[in-house]
Amino acid sequence: MMYQEIMAKVRGTTPLIHCITNYVTVNDVANVLLAAGASPIMADDEAEVEEITALCGGLAINIGTLNGRTIASMIKAGKKANVLGNFTILDPVGAGASKLRTEIARKLIKKVRFSVIRGNVSEIKTISAGTGTTKGVDADSQDAVTEENLAASAAHFKELSKRTGSIIAVTGAIDLVCDGERAYVIRNGHAMMSRITGTGCMLTGLMAAFCAANPKQQLVAAAAAVTAMGIAGEMAQEKVRGANAGTGSFRMYLIDAISNMDDKMLNGGAKVEIL
Amino acid sequence: MMYQEIMAKVRGTTPLIHCITNYVTVNDVANVLLAAGASPIMADDEAEVEEITALCGGLAINIGTLNGRTIASMIKAGKKANVLGNFTILDPVGAGASKLRTEIARKLIKKVRFSVIRGNVSEIKTISAGTGTTKGVDADSQDAVTEENLAASAAHFKELSKRTGSIIAVTGAIDLVCDGERAYVIRNGHAMMSRITGTGCMLTGLMAAFCAANPKQQLVAAAAAVTAMGIAGEMAQEKVRGANAGTGSFRMYLIDAISNMDDKMLNGGAKVEIL
Amino acid sequence: MMYQEIMAKVRGTTPLIHCITNYVTVNDVANVLLAAGASPIMADDEAEVEEITALCGGLAINIGTLNGRTIASMIKAGKKANVLGNFTILDPVGAGASKLRTEIARKLIKKVRFSVIRGNVSEIKTISAGTGTTKGVDADSQDAVTEENLAASAAHFKELSKRTGSIIAVTGAIDLVCDGERAYVIRNGHAMMSRITGTGCMLTGLMAAFCAANPKQQLVAAAAAVTAMGIAGEMAQEKVRGANAGTGSFRMYLIDAISNMDDKMLNGGAKVEIL
Repeated sequence: MMYQEIMAKVRGTTPLIHCITNYVTVNDVANVLLAAGASPIMADDEAEVEEITALCGGLAINIGTLNGRTIASMIKAGKKANVLGNFTILDPVGAGASKLRTEIARKLIKKVRFSVIRGNVSEIKTISAGTGTTKGVDADSQDAVTEENLAASAAHFKELSKRTGSIIAVTGAIDLVCDGERAYVIRNGHAMMSRITGTGCMLTGLMAAFCAANPKQQLVAAAAAVTAMGIAGEMAQEKVRGANAGTGSFRMYLIDAISNMDDKMLNGGAKVEIL
Repeated sequence: MMYQEIMAKVRGTTPLIHCITNYVTVNDVANVLLAAGASPIMADDEAEVEEITALCGGLAINIGTLNGRTIASMIKAGKKANVLGNFTILDPVGAGASKLRTEIARKLIKKVRFSVIRGNVSEIKTISAGTGTTKGVDADSQDAVTEENLAASAAHFKELSKRTGSIIAVTGAIDLVCDGERAYVIRNGHAMMSRITGTGCMLTGLMAAFCAANPKQQLVAAAAAVTAMGIAGEMAQEKVRGANAGTGSFRMYLIDAISNMDDKMLNGGAKVEIL
Repeated sequence: MMYQEIMAKVRGTTPLIHCITNYVTVNDVANVLLAAGASPIMADDEAEVEEITALCGGLAINIGTLNGRTIASMIKAGKKANVLGNFTILDPVGAGASKLRTEIARKLIKKVRFSVIRGNVSEIKTISAGTGTTKGVDADSQDAVTEENLAASAAHFKELSKRTGSIIAVTGAIDLVCDGERAYVIRNGHAMMSRITGTGCMLTGLMAAFCAANPKQQLVAAAAAVTAMGIAGEMAQEKVRGANAGTGSFRMYLIDAISNMDDKMLNGGAKVEIL
């Protein structure tokens, strides 16, 4: 297990991450990046995105609250990041919920090579085959990765990774992070994570930081980010329970946990299997 | 009192709420909807708003930080929601503070049938007769609903409800929720609610969830949402006082209280009268 | 020391502050203004910004996440505020990080008279001479104001103040607030303030409130805002340490501290020197 080295690299190199992200959870994304030891910069105007991306080690594109103006910026920034060989991640929020989101997610994948594509299972299936049944921005339960379909799911997403050339990170009760050869199965996290907005968006940002700081070990880095966020969710829920608190506190404790995470928490808490 | 049934329906049916809302408080709105057991989706691009609205049980339009691009989306989404018979709510943030806001609020009411219009008293008076004197986004104190003018105020807003065909929810120190026949007078809440941004916007979101989950009892549902938010404000203020905390904590405790609210808190705490 | 009178004026007069600000930290800016006893209104559409500014006592322009639409609004609002003699502040977030930001910051300074320009040292140096080396939205360490270069830095920014006609507030480990004659050196604050997003943006908002409420003592008011924010950072860090918490909690405690700050905390905690 080399998770602690992955995390140490983030804190030691302070990767600068360019985020073109939605306005719902943008503050949480910025704060989780800072909590992890990275440095966020949010910029979405076509006139500056290439220059901003060129300053950064990673680019995180999140299509929640996309619009005509920002779509053009996403493509421009993505192409520039590709030219520079920078890390890129796509979070296809709500793909499947509207034609616009489905089309733009696919268009982005066509025009930009993404190092990682991260979403819930319905979003990823929508991108993959047009068969996901996204219900709003949440995954449909019939798409879920379960213990029963785990092997088949892993095979499916490995295949998708080969086809797209991107690491595929599918998050839910059980998380899968796959390249063409290996699938990390991560069983950390807590159901309370779906009772606040932004855990997915925050994870996308965190993954950008972890992978940008560890360019030669992107699969492990992506899995480490999922694991860290899952453990943070468990720790936050413990605190909420102890304090008889609620979902407002949970959100805060989640960021606290990322900012305080040490090797012992990360390695001790990790529930990871490789398929 | 059937407040607990109203709330149980929200948690039991997880209504999906399409929000076209301002970027100041959008995260709080999403989190309060999730805390209540509903599911938010924020989308404001003209190319997708009709489709998104069609997925949802309710549409919440909030004109804080409106702009040319989002105004067109509001109208389009509103018309679609009307065609589908979906619940619709308008929060005319800052109506009276600028010609743009006043005109757009009125235009929206002309083009879209709103199930509920919710605002502070100055915003509602501006819409009603052009006589409210909004000071920024806060109500002017001379417009306030008081114990002295309560009967006259209730009569006035019942009349406005008849005229517009919308439930009118006027919130302040004393809250009024009226249709053409009945006025719920709610005396819950705490002054500290006006020391954070977003309590009004959150209430609008919450009301959308409560009403969308209870389409046949919209007046009671709207009153229940006001009551729940008021009680949450009281609970949050108790916590702040106990912890010697401040307004930052208040915001968090408010969402905690919504996420933890049970029948006993809601019914036990409600200070409701019907005129 | 008259800091307590400055603060009392904010609470006594509730200055209305028009913010055209970025969507990353806009909620924090609104909440810190409310915590301080001021009243925020966020509005960025060209069709209403002049009217909104005319309602207000101060205008805060922050170019984080600027775009074509909002740039035009910034200039329009700034000119109107100048005509009315209202307080104006510019926060040139990320000036130096992209040509767009550098050019727009300079254009704004050319077209609008700002009462105060507040930024980190790289942003201010970029504006001043095109020599700052902004790294993303954070200052470059080689630009930093230190005990060693303090006298020279103060002289430099006094000179810049004379040239621009604006009070210059340069914040970092050591803060400088200068007009042409005097430099306030403020040594409050804590390193943890740079581990959350928004402390700079919040300070810009707070400064607008402090100065707008004290138009005849803008230099002292600006210094008081820096001092109050620094002390709040120290208090928040104490709380985080006591509770074994993290950066999520820090953000909340910071706003708590502003909302609870009294004369004794402000005067007792101030570490201010005048050069």
